[in-house]
Amino acid sequence: MSRSNLDIVKVADAFPYPADSPTDQLQKLGSYFHFRIATHPGVTLGYVPPSIALTFAGLPDWALNPDCSPRTLTLVGGHDEPTRTAMLEKTTSGMRATGHFKNLEKWRDELFPVYGPEEELLFSIERSATPLFGVVTYGVHMTAYRMSPGKDGQDSMEIWVPRRSSNRAKFPGMLDTSVGGGLATGETPWTCLIRESEEEASLREEVVKRAEDAGALTYFYLSGEGSGGEAGLAQPECSYVFDLDLSGSPPDTLVPNDGSVEAFALMTVAEIKRALSNGEFKPNCALVMLDFLIRHGQIKAEHEPDYEEICSRLHRNLEFPVPRMFG
Amino acid sequence: MSRSNLDIVKVADAFPYPADSPTDQLQKLGSYFHFRIATHPGVTLGYVPPSIALTFAGLPDWALNPDCSPRTLTLVGGHDEPTRTAMLEKTTSGMRATGHFKNLEKWRDELFPVYGPEEELLFSIERSATPLFGVVTYGVHMTAYRMSPGKDGQDSMEIWVPRRSSNRAKFPGMLDTSVGGGLATGETPWTCLIRESEEEASLREEVVKRAEDAGALTYFYLSGEGSGGEAGLAQPECSYVFDLDLSGSPPDTLVPNDGSVEAFALMTVAEIKRALSNGEFKPNCALVMLDFLIRHGQIKAEHEPDYEEICSRLHRNLEFPVPRMFG
Repeated sequence: MSRSNLDIVKVADAFPYPADSPTDQLQKLGSYFHFRIATHPGVTLGYVPPSIALTFAGLPDWALNPDCSPRTLTLVGGHDEPTRTAMLEKTTSGMRATGHFKNLEKWRDELFPVYGPEEELLFSIERSATPLFGVVTYGVHMTAYRMSPGKDGQDSMEIWVPRRSSNRAKFPGMLDTSVGGGLATGETPWTCLIRESEEEASLREEVVKRAEDAGALTYFYLSGEGSGGEAGLAQPECSYVFDLDLSGSPPDTLVPNDGSVEAFALMTVAEIKRALSNGEFKPNCALVMLDFLIRHGQIKAEHEPDYEEICSRLHRNLEFPVPRMFG
Repeated sequence: MSRSNLDIVKVADAFPYPADSPTDQLQKLGSYFHFRIATHPGVTLGYVPPSIALTFAGLPDWALNPDCSPRTLTLVGGHDEPTRTAMLEKTTSGMRATGHFKNLEKWRDELFPVYGPEEELLFSIERSATPLFGVVTYGVHMTAYRMSPGKDGQDSMEIWVPRRSSNRAKFPGMLDTSVGGGLATGETPWTCLIRESEEEASLREEVVKRAEDAGALTYFYLSGEGSGGEAGLAQPECSYVFDLDLSGSPPDTLVPNDGSVEAFALMTVAEIKRALSNGEFKPNCALVMLDFLIRHGQIKAEHEPDYEEICSRLHRNLEFPVPRMFG
């Protein structure tokens, strides 16, 4: 079924907006537990659905308060970053051992950072567990494209689009951004981009260094069918986006390397728009593609009925701490 | 005094965010009247400060309710667009005649559109009166730039920047975007851009047509010193932004035409950043410039500590109806 660009945005930015939501959605929102740590009272780091939060009842290191407003799930003790990271490791390993959590079946052995209101690193947490705690995760996405002379004398744009391998845990076989990846603790957007460009697309560092920063997208995913884990998980995300113009000669090409990508194809803007409308892109990658097309004049205010709302929702004001600087 | 890029954003996106605001700001927010029309109960079109709203007490066509939550100022009667437009005209002309409102001293005789939740035109209102009612206004901003070979072999960018005439009512003598203007009722972003480009910068339509759509910025200004009218007025704005690459040869130049601009200068990115930091740009034009620099990789995630917050605040989720289509 063909979907509008705003429909596409709503798939990835699916968490309800309090101001616009009907009562039943607001009630659901109110049932989420606010994930906090005892050293930072009043600061919410993520939202945890009741079905997850209630499994913490009686666990050492954790205090569950279902009767206050908002309801809270608090890590008690742990007065510095290494201690808290170790406590989270103990908890998430235990959760994994129970076998109850689909998300933890694809344990990644990668640590993701969680920041506090002073932009300080509070702790790190196993990547596959981040959706269970509803904390903000950070990623990079690069769009590699080239301009070539079209039949009408106007330059036409082609974009490098990979298809995800069919054996991936999340969104197998779907279309993706040219290069993308998650920021592990200690990585900056640039170091992550250079690493992922080599791993996923065989792009050399000297080519990737020609990429240009093009903004940060923020949106709030709510896991559902196809996300490869529990449904109803709150997943606020911040994606740093980069553009790489590969119009030069000889043309650089993107080639699969580490097995995460099945194949790359050069797609025209018309083909991309069709694939977006058909729901062929991974939800957050569809947002990156829409932002790219908007920034490059390929989606125009005059023809897109939901232009302002799309621009705004690609840059959602997240209610959690977001760091000032990485690395 | 030198200000950070986030400081610059906060000048133009100054209206408090409910989730992040201290109690005294929230109380102030709660004192604003919600501007509504009787045919659309529950739909707020703008925020009116109490000092303005209370002057409507006893006026025909208006109902003031300071005791409900939220407080409301409602246009009663007026069941179609022409009737409502005539009622607003009667009210704003009367307000002008009293001489009480500084904003109305610069009466523009231009009608601006106000839209409803179904994206329908509800009525039009005199431009200079829009801040008194706190309704969303729409504008276009184009950044004209050129790339030229730099000493180091890398292309360097220069941007056409006008200085506003010293006799303008608002922000005289400040720096502005290459071309900018407000959308009157019946105009589309493109027709407005083509008109303003001729009026302000002597740019011919065939040159302007090479400009590319580059997004929509939304932000919420709160009038203060220097805005040339009452302070404390709520001014939500939506700006459609366009980029015009004038690198071609022979170079097109921007030349003042209608007297709104004193002179144009080609400024380097370093000069622009210095002028931004010194507060030399009109507040909303500074936002357009920051967005342009971010989209063109001239402000980088790695070096800008508030990158995500800036990107998000340039695309604020406004709590008022915004149209789907113009024209």
